[in-house]
Amino acid sequence: MSPTADRPAPSAAVPQDRLYDGLILGVHLATLDGEGYGEIADGALGWRDGLLAYVGPRSALPGAPEALAAQVIESEGWITPGLVDCHTHLVFAGDRAREFELRLQGASYEQIARAGGGIVSTVRATREADEDALLRQSLPRARTLVNDGATTLEIKSGYGLDYANERKMLRVARQVGQTLGIQVRTTYLGAHALPPEYAGRSDEYIDAVCEWLPRLHGEGLVDAVDAFCEGIGFSPAQTRRVFEAARALDLPVKLHADQLSDLGGAALAAEFSGLSADHVEYTSEDSVRAMAAHGTVAVLLPGAFHVLRETRLPPLDAFRAHGVAMAVATDCNPGTSPLQSLRQAMQLACTHFRLTPLEALRGASEHAARALGHRDRGVLKPGARADFVRWTIGHPSELCYWLGGALAGDVYAGGRRVGGAG
Amino acid sequence: MSPTADRPAPSAAVPQDRLYDGLILGVHLATLDGEGYGEIADGALGWRDGLLAYVGPRSALPGAPEALAAQVIESEGWITPGLVDCHTHLVFAGDRAREFELRLQGASYEQIARAGGGIVSTVRATREADEDALLRQSLPRARTLVNDGATTLEIKSGYGLDYANERKMLRVARQVGQTLGIQVRTTYLGAHALPPEYAGRSDEYIDAVCEWLPRLHGEGLVDAVDAFCEGIGFSPAQTRRVFEAARALDLPVKLHADQLSDLGGAALAAEFSGLSADHVEYTSEDSVRAMAAHGTVAVLLPGAFHVLRETRLPPLDAFRAHGVAMAVATDCNPGTSPLQSLRQAMQLACTHFRLTPLEALRGASEHAARALGHRDRGVLKPGARADFVRWTIGHPSELCYWLGGALAGDVYAGGRRVGGAG
Ligand SMILES: [Zn+2]
Ligand SMILES: [Zn+2]
Repeated sequence: MSPTADRPAPSAAVPQDRLYDGLILGVHLATLDGEGYGEIADGALGWRDGLLAYVGPRSALPGAPEALAAQVIESEGWITPGLVDCHTHLVFAGDRAREFELRLQGASYEQIARAGGGIVSTVRATREADEDALLRQSLPRARTLVNDGATTLEIKSGYGLDYANERKMLRVARQVGQTLGIQVRTTYLGAHALPPEYAGRSDEYIDAVCEWLPRLHGEGLVDAVDAFCEGIGFSPAQTRRVFEAARALDLPVKLHADQLSDLGGAALAAEFSGLSADHVEYTSEDSVRAMAAHGTVAVLLPGAFHVLRETRLPPLDAFRAHGVAMAVATDCNPGTSPLQSLRQAMQLACTHFRLTPLEALRGASEHAARALGHRDRGVLKPGARADFVRWTIGHPSELCYWLGGALAGDVYAGGRRVGGAG
Repeated sequence: MSPTADRPAPSAAVPQDRLYDGLILGVHLATLDGEGYGEIADGALGWRDGLLAYVGPRSALPGAPEALAAQVIESEGWITPGLVDCHTHLVFAGDRAREFELRLQGASYEQIARAGGGIVSTVRATREADEDALLRQSLPRARTLVNDGATTLEIKSGYGLDYANERKMLRVARQVGQTLGIQVRTTYLGAHALPPEYAGRSDEYIDAVCEWLPRLHGEGLVDAVDAFCEGIGFSPAQTRRVFEAARALDLPVKLHADQLSDLGGAALAAEFSGLSADHVEYTSEDSVRAMAAHGTVAVLLPGAFHVLRETRLPPLDAFRAHGVAMAVATDCNPGTSPLQSLRQAMQLACTHFRLTPLEALRGASEHAARALGHRDRGVLKPGARADFVRWTIGHPSELCYWLGGALAGDVYAGGRRVGGAG
């Protein structure tokens, strides 16, 4: 025992009997608890040990603020749950802005491929980048999402397409979370595209994808498993094999489903009690029923819809009618959705899909959390993680109304300030 | 003469013979001078007395950097001309997010009107706000635009609709420019909508608009004159009367023209050698010819197109064929374009109107400057105003590619840093 062990530690100067570590006053709350926004005017939010401890009107606080918390913050505006981006590909190297430009200059698909464009170019750049470079390039995107209100991010692999590079992407995804002080859920998307070295041998590639999975999982790098089930991606039979490999490890699945055609992908995800089916523009009503039966969330990705100028809307009324939860995510990726803001995704969901602002907000918080298997966030209530955002707005509907702007004043994750415009 | 008058002033410690006040190195330049981006790799940008003094490769600088400028900045990324937002209504009180929400909840136009929505609600809130409150509410929007790269803003009146309140709006617009250290061009848009007190008497209202103009101009508050020429706005004959009042004062005109129908508004603007015709979705080829003949710029407003989910495209090919310059602006307003980012307007112009990224960038710089009658900005060249932006990007096409994000590292107006993400 060291001679100083019985002296009080410096932190003992803070009274140990205070109820909260921090307490914010002067704000309105949109708790999203129950129906509607769950508005609490002139509210207060207290937290302790990273969890919310008080969510209610200031007038009902159990004592004088200074006696309740070491840190008391008088603020203004609205507080909502921290946003959850449940579908991103934000770890990648290079970008595809030049390809975007060539397309607008009228270049054909072939010309772009000849110019080195397409997903192959992202795979090449991602493979060439070492772990440090990949982190350095990806971190600003994640930081931008956090400064715009995100406190939980899902990040997929899928530009490595071999063991070492998928592993590198997943390791970088973990580092993004550690560096920014937020929670990151990793998704293994080995079945994203066929790498050039497997051209014409997609079944063999799926063998490899299934073989890499337990090794990556053994390193603690995989929280869920995803695939791209599409005519230009992998077949339902191949997807099923990936899902079976996930099930063998007790890993949850999700799916890029029914974006460009109806291959029954959403129903397949539901059959495996998938967390979510994502895109879902072409999902049939039968598939919607299957999703409802298994609690599979519909993840709407209006950024890709916008950039690709799609016109086929997801079956929104069927989702509503059957009680399928709808989430909204950025799909942040260099090809089809170069989107660095969940708020912009929410705006696009309202504009293109006619979601109400409340549906879009719940879609980027409670329902997005559910799409990641989290039940401890996305709603402001005691016991939930202290992930929340203070917005400089007059009403939560503004979150979907403005295009551009820096509305997130303070972003807290686990009770610690991790971003915001200040 | 004071006894200390012949002592050197403190500022004399800075050598007076240096060529530049400031010099930025380590950057690529997109000068937009001539065709294309006007790229200069490994460039340098020097300025003095608020004007650009050196625009070229670092290797051709006329001496060692430290000998050339008092302030030498080693940086990275790309520098473009400062962006010019040539069409905004950013001075207003209140917002219309609740109306946006009601619309998405399925409310009819009548229900929204009964709930106090529509432009009338903005007029009411703007009239009620005193000058300080109006500035306090408007400034954050302008600051957001500046932090996103804008160094010149046009700001319209048009929510006051009486002499005192139009005057208040124009005074606030001037204060926005002074506060932020950027240039603001004011536009008198008394003929924006018919105020309730003139219901059924639109000709009398136009009389009043024309009567207020010389008084406002006498106070130095008016740089240009605009009107809303539309079935739901004012007729071509009424617009003509406003334009004649402007001509009598030698003030340039511009017009909200042909947004929802073809009333020949763009041709009318051209007839008065108008600076611009704005919106122009329904502009005929004859009108395009008239615009070309008079150098009237076509100002594209893809934010309103997006929010209103319009489908009728402006005659882009005709503008190109006839050599009509196309500008891109935010139309920042609380009803139809709650857009606080010129970059997002550029992205929407590329997505919805298929502009190339170069067209969109030139549209938000050189052509937008021309739409305000400025020939001293919008292009990087010696003698132009030292308005420029350093972007943290790998190529200028990224400015139109990303949705969201904080790409403007440093924003300079007249050689002084006025904003940016740092
Ligand atoms: Zn995706
Ligand atoms: Zn306008």
